[in-house]
Amino acid sequence: MTMKIDATMKPHDQMAAYLADDMQAVSALIRERMASKHAPRIPEVTAHLVEAGGKRLRPMLTLAAARMCGYGGPYHVHLAATVEFIHTATLLHDDVVDESAQRRGRPTANLLWDNQSSVLVGDYLFARSFQLMTEPGSMPVMRILSNAAATIAEGEVLQLTAAQNLATDEAVYLQVVRGKTAALFSAATEVGGVIAGASTDQVKALYDYGDALGIAFQIVDDLLDYQGDTGATGKNVGDDFRERKLTLPVIKAVAKADAEERAFWVRTIEKGKQEDGDLDQALSILNKHATLAATQRDAHGWAEKAKAALAPLPDHDLKDMLIDLADYVVSRIS
Amino acid sequence: MTMKIDATMKPHDQMAAYLADDMQAVSALIRERMASKHAPRIPEVTAHLVEAGGKRLRPMLTLAAARMCGYGGPYHVHLAATVEFIHTATLLHDDVVDESAQRRGRPTANLLWDNQSSVLVGDYLFARSFQLMTEPGSMPVMRILSNAAATIAEGEVLQLTAAQNLATDEAVYLQVVRGKTAALFSAATEVGGVIAGASTDQVKALYDYGDALGIAFQIVDDLLDYQGDTGATGKNVGDDFRERKLTLPVIKAVAKADAEERAFWVRTIEKGKQEDGDLDQALSILNKHATLAATQRDAHGWAEKAKAALAPLPDHDLKDMLIDLADYVVSRIS
Repeated sequence: MTMKIDATMKPHDQMAAYLADDMQAVSALIRERMASKHAPRIPEVTAHLVEAGGKRLRPMLTLAAARMCGYGGPYHVHLAATVEFIHTATLLHDDVVDESAQRRGRPTANLLWDNQSSVLVGDYLFARSFQLMTEPGSMPVMRILSNAAATIAEGEVLQLTAAQNLATDEAVYLQVVRGKTAALFSAATEVGGVIAGASTDQVKALYDYGDALGIAFQIVDDLLDYQGDTGATGKNVGDDFRERKLTLPVIKAVAKADAEERAFWVRTIEKGKQEDGDLDQALSILNKHATLAATQRDAHGWAEKAKAALAPLPDHDLKDMLIDLADYVVSRIS
Repeated sequence: MTMKIDATMKPHDQMAAYLADDMQAVSALIRERMASKHAPRIPEVTAHLVEAGGKRLRPMLTLAAARMCGYGGPYHVHLAATVEFIHTATLLHDDVVDESAQRRGRPTANLLWDNQSSVLVGDYLFARSFQLMTEPGSMPVMRILSNAAATIAEGEVLQLTAAQNLATDEAVYLQVVRGKTAALFSAATEVGGVIAGASTDQVKALYDYGDALGIAFQIVDDLLDYQGDTGATGKNVGDDFRERKLTLPVIKAVAKADAEERAFWVRTIEKGKQEDGDLDQALSILNKHATLAATQRDAHGWAEKAKAALAPLPDHDLKDMLIDLADYVVSRIS
């Protein structure tokens, strides 16, 4: 342990401090495996992504799950790096799909280089993640992680068609979120338990925690898109509205819309004919139906489910931190 | 065996007939695994790709290698489907990267749907390929196929920067081709041998055959881009020139260029400032230096290497067909 932990630190910083040696090993492995002997464009793009940082929440979940379950081997590091590579590859491809210009407050790779580089370097990272996940030689781990990769892509494709369709209800939204976000959280925690040889009950508990945490995380993200400020989130308020993405606050508002409001959503989201002042109008409709508050309650509900899921796991400092983490994720909106 | 084989059939049709039952099993598995419960866009796009057909050369190589080496189990079918999924995923992403409008004589998925669908459905097929490759439970097979996926992406990224750079020489060209094309051919034949438990020498022979065949195949493809007709190839003559891709005939011409010719290549390939008549001018320079003929000789040389590589393998009908296939690949340009 190389860093001191104190109670004033944010939960993910406490975990990062507790798992400092493991996290350093993950960083070293990521740096090693994102290199390329032949194609200089690859380290350029990946270095940009690594410098942009991010909290490395997902690999930390894998490390925490493995350590909580008493794992003493070296392979949780490979699995944590696998999870981060899958995440980074999906970010590169998401930015192409969304035509994003900013990510974590910095220009995106598709803007700095081009869409081609983002697509192909993303493919490279996917392939590297699959190389990494084979190294522990555990069939269940490979099944979990390759299933997660398929579920993520499926969720992203579903979002393509569902996001601009006013018929999309909360059930479809949940399916999209389980795919594009929660699948990697739950795989991250689950493989940590599996590599540690945890019991079936404990592995299921870790899966359920990751699933609920991931859903809470995405709902908060969708909420901050209407409530946050660019400085704190690195995103522009109203991006989802401008990109015509039907997220939970809007889905709840569509369900309560009168004829005039419905016509507004049809025009702005389904048809994408947006004018000056439409974002303000959208916010005013969301407030009228109190859907931001309702969405916030949903996020808190998922955080509670995440915490409750951990019950079958033994007492452990990391268990306490995972509980705090679930609270912290939704504290951004409270 | 459900189809008759006769000597007038093309080698890949003879192989398809010989391996008819296996190929049907591969088709059924591909259809099953390209489905999606949740995202209807996925089967739409994948059905378009499957209907467009193609010869399924790469999965056939896996089946042939496994059967030649006496394999009697079921998993060569999974590996063949894996290889085809990796191939299809790269085609989807290539068409986005190249902004292609036609593939196998039909409009591309990025044109019929959009780039987003092509990127994300490609990701889905990559993930599905990784699910499939884990099923036989063979670590060497997973290593070979995940390495191939990384090498393919690396070759594609290298091509991005090398293709418009007149400093690209034949060695770099070969590296790109080994990545983007030959890596999947050699992995396809190698895993067939590995799953069958063939000897190290035989597995190496299969790898070398696939590597040389893949290189010959790509050189022929690059040559047909200057020599072929759209009806036969489903491509437009001069596509590579218009897309400013430095392929072998041009690399050889650049090496022999006088000052005026060099200026022509700098303008048309490096700077991409093309005018009417430039393709004719390019062809006339290629003919002046006889680089199309020299490229053809290279392709034949690689086909000979492919055939010679098969020596360590025992006599087998499929071995004869693989030898004929190498001749056939280059016969398109003789």
